[in-house]
Amino acid sequence: MTNKRVVIVGGVAGGATCAARLRRLDEHVEILLLDRGPYVSFANCGLPYYVGNVIQDESKLLLASPDLFKKRFNIEVRTRSEVIAIDRVAQTVSIRDRATGHDYSEPYDTLVLSPGAEPVCPPWPGVDLPGIFTLRNIPDSRNIREWIDTQHPEKAIIVGGGFIGLEMAENLAHRGIQVTVVELANQLMPPLDPEMAEYARRHVLSHGVALSLNNGVVGFEQSDGDGLIVRTQSGITFDAGLVVLAIGVRPETKLARDAGLEVGDRGGIRVDGGMRTSDPHIWAVGDAVEAKNIFTDQWELLPLAGPANRQARIAADVICGRSSRFDGVLGTAICGFFGLTVALTGETEKSLRRAGIADYEAVYLHPNQHVAYYPGAHPIHLKLLVRKSDGLVLGAQAVGEADVARRIDIIATAIHMKATAFDLENLELCYAPQYGAAKDPVNMAGMIAANVLRGDMDLAPWSNLSAGKAFLLDVREPHEFQAGAIPGSRNIPLGQLRSRLSELPLSEEIWVNCGVGQRAYYACRILAQHGFQVRNLSGGFQTYKTLYPAL
Amino acid sequence: MTNKRVVIVGGVAGGATCAARLRRLDEHVEILLLDRGPYVSFANCGLPYYVGNVIQDESKLLLASPDLFKKRFNIEVRTRSEVIAIDRVAQTVSIRDRATGHDYSEPYDTLVLSPGAEPVCPPWPGVDLPGIFTLRNIPDSRNIREWIDTQHPEKAIIVGGGFIGLEMAENLAHRGIQVTVVELANQLMPPLDPEMAEYARRHVLSHGVALSLNNGVVGFEQSDGDGLIVRTQSGITFDAGLVVLAIGVRPETKLARDAGLEVGDRGGIRVDGGMRTSDPHIWAVGDAVEAKNIFTDQWELLPLAGPANRQARIAADVICGRSSRFDGVLGTAICGFFGLTVALTGETEKSLRRAGIADYEAVYLHPNQHVAYYPGAHPIHLKLLVRKSDGLVLGAQAVGEADVARRIDIIATAIHMKATAFDLENLELCYAPQYGAAKDPVNMAGMIAANVLRGDMDLAPWSNLSAGKAFLLDVREPHEFQAGAIPGSRNIPLGQLRSRLSELPLSEEIWVNCGVGQRAYYACRILAQHGFQVRNLSGGFQTYKTLYPAL
Repeated sequence: MTNKRVVIVGGVAGGATCAARLRRLDEHVEILLLDRGPYVSFANCGLPYYVGNVIQDESKLLLASPDLFKKRFNIEVRTRSEVIAIDRVAQTVSIRDRATGHDYSEPYDTLVLSPGAEPVCPPWPGVDLPGIFTLRNIPDSRNIREWIDTQHPEKAIIVGGGFIGLEMAENLAHRGIQVTVVELANQLMPPLDPEMAEYARRHVLSHGVALSLNNGVVGFEQSDGDGLIVRTQSGITFDAGLVVLAIGVRPETKLARDAGLEVGDRGGIRVDGGMRTSDPHIWAVGDAVEAKNIFTDQWELLPLAGPANRQARIAADVICGRSSRFDGVLGTAICGFFGLTVALTGETEKSLRRAGIADYEAVYLHPNQHVAYYPGAHPIHLKLLVRKSDGLVLGAQAVGEADVARRIDIIATAIHMKATAFDLENLELCYAPQYGAAKDPVNMAGMIAANVLRGDMDLAPWSNLSAGKAFLLDVREPHEFQAGAIPGSRNIPLGQLRSRLSELPLSEEIWVNCGVGQRAYYACRILAQHGFQVRNLSGGFQTYKTLYPAL
Repeated sequence: MTNKRVVIVGGVAGGATCAARLRRLDEHVEILLLDRGPYVSFANCGLPYYVGNVIQDESKLLLASPDLFKKRFNIEVRTRSEVIAIDRVAQTVSIRDRATGHDYSEPYDTLVLSPGAEPVCPPWPGVDLPGIFTLRNIPDSRNIREWIDTQHPEKAIIVGGGFIGLEMAENLAHRGIQVTVVELANQLMPPLDPEMAEYARRHVLSHGVALSLNNGVVGFEQSDGDGLIVRTQSGITFDAGLVVLAIGVRPETKLARDAGLEVGDRGGIRVDGGMRTSDPHIWAVGDAVEAKNIFTDQWELLPLAGPANRQARIAADVICGRSSRFDGVLGTAICGFFGLTVALTGETEKSLRRAGIADYEAVYLHPNQHVAYYPGAHPIHLKLLVRKSDGLVLGAQAVGEADVARRIDIIATAIHMKATAFDLENLELCYAPQYGAAKDPVNMAGMIAANVLRGDMDLAPWSNLSAGKAFLLDVREPHEFQAGAIPGSRNIPLGQLRSRLSELPLSEEIWVNCGVGQRAYYACRILAQHGFQVRNLSGGFQTYKTLYPAL
């Protein structure tokens, strides 16, 4: 046995999972789990909901106690125990007992680092003022709750419009606080393509959250009352009784760096497929490590619980001599706020452009989550990316009020299995009226992409719309057209198209739109067979409104 | 052009889809769509909900009118036009105009048969009495609605406890009618394995529906009042003001048989992968045809809208000279009633046994649809079947009150892509507290199966439980054990197991159970490493209660 003693640093998702898996694989190894905080194995994804009082009982966030680890897994847990140094030669860690301040060391045969990531907190003037918080652990969330309960802030500023920022916006609104989100980028939820994030923008606005996009914080001051003044780059100042910084997280790598372990360009601990660091006795998992993107093979930071769990299991396997490998990340993520769900998996147009990849096609569609004739139908706004050369599914983004996770999970599974658009067309998915449609939204996405790949329909480049090079044809009914249309477009309803072909130019490209893209597809098929050069503006006027939201 | 004129018989899912696809592929072909009923392209899956007044407006069931077919697709639709014969030599069909009774014929170059399936209606005495209905089309559902509105039945008998029968049970209960379901089999929802159908049985009972399983109807009589008496095999008679026959459907093949087209052993029109019948000018799609099961390669009848739609598109493709092929069916299906969702995809133990396949392993699990600490968690009872020799995912059944379709759709996608349990383990699925768990139920199912396949855990054969050959160990806490346990089992809580190993036999197989299987897995790992012969009773006491429901 080479693993007489495994020491694990960090007892939340990655560390706790790794410890439990180690015990299942090896009943005899000694396992010591250290965490500098007061708890191990707590539900950090639940923290915003504890602040919002959606989860009312703090004890629900504690998934496993040190006592349970001892009894069930024969694992020794020490909380309030901070590892402050690693001696790789002696194979020991120095531990500070945060209750007593006493330092001591413990030997290891194998060391697992699962220190997580810390909230980014820039050195802005006044950032340490009371009422300004970050959110990483139970004490943080308890502090925000107590601040709300005792100070009764009327207004809150959330700095950062990403996933956590929007979850916090919902939860603070739920506490009756008027929320403003300040975001440096010109969109919410920066991992998304901007037109997909536009749905989130509209939705939070419609729920009374104020937004200040394209704007950054420059500092904080105490106001004359007992509140805060938030100064921003735009010159606007905001009054707030509460500020939450949700700008993102940064891998905790000080311990690893100090010990001379390799750290990657993205700032995470570098590991191999077996989650081993540059030291053969040290493994690392979770938010502190870099992971390879499955498609681009680029190193990424993806601080999410699912991959952390997989990495932890794989590290335990490899420590126990198994050959498991972490295959990398797709980037599947989901966020809900005010009844809207936003989810994505795989690549976005942003990530493809960043990786210099142009061999792709993007299709938009807006199907209902189930048949329209059954009560309660809601649209899912879906963007699917496929590789143009062979149809490989690259990624998807979806926004809607119902059954969004399901469609992204189907596509995440498809990507994992290297499916193509032609597979998506033919998936045999659940259908009854309250659950879907005979052609599920995912089938529809596959069909649209496959139509493009087979050459049955060309897509028009939305980004060139304003160049004015094409004849814009809108095939909706006149009352729809009159309620709002793409400037410069000409209306011929689909039902009249065959009899009005003479009104269309043979010498010019015709770009067709309708409401969501379906009638335009029918029109494209008619026109192409009559010799016109024709392209579909994918997703129709629905997509137009997100690409050109000012209109 | 060989397709100068395509005649399509049947204008619901398959026929209408095929017609529209044909037009998109060929702007110049002449398309004639015939249906003997008053409507085409109606939502037959919505009919039970129209009876239940969940869908209140009949016009919502009409998805496309003959006028829309003409305007949008340049397709001629003739309703109330029944094709009564095919002359394959002359390539004509004889049509009866049901409005006038006049017969005439129309020529075809290509004929597409999409006649659907008709409800089974055995020749029971009294089956034609007023108040006894089947449900196939809009007039049928209108008749049932009118019967309810005018006769105000207090009690209804539904004959058949399959998908449609249970949808009807919910909808009649929704109309305030006391419902009894009479089912010949000893379980509801016969496609499911019986222990999974047990959840459905308990659920409908808890919603006030009475059940008479293992019982068949023998006849109907008019009662002294204005109701019906339903006589059954068991000798029990039921009073009813309304009877709905939901025993299943049978392919409509008279036209095809009369024309000498090949019909398969299962009673459906036989077609090749291009949906072509034994006549090279005639195609057939939808509920009237047999389809090959993807895994067993056996012919099956699967009267569902999704496959009908795919078949219709493929028929149109092939008619237009494309090389599309229908790859067969998984059997994905879903049904909801009284807030419960039951869904399945791929093989069941029943279907595997029927096909003589023994190379499989079945795992049970009962995870919540999302983390337990977020409000509103509900269990999903999940059964996964994998091939034992290589882990190939064969099928899954799931029952629960939330997010069941999502998990079955993920697994349907996995089966389509020939995924293994090892793939399911590593899928990167959507997770935030209100949407799932870091280890999604599908990941969990994969992990359990993979544990078995890797030899980390053996499963005990539930079916041999009563043989009394094993030592039964229950590792739950004493209060759980006392509230109900497997007869003859011995309780040692997991937390005490390591210190009480001496109480266990080394010479005998130990079968371990807990609540849902997780603690038993931990116990198995401990015991196996201490030299015991140990097996997990998959899914624990939860599964036990469905396998031995009388207890």
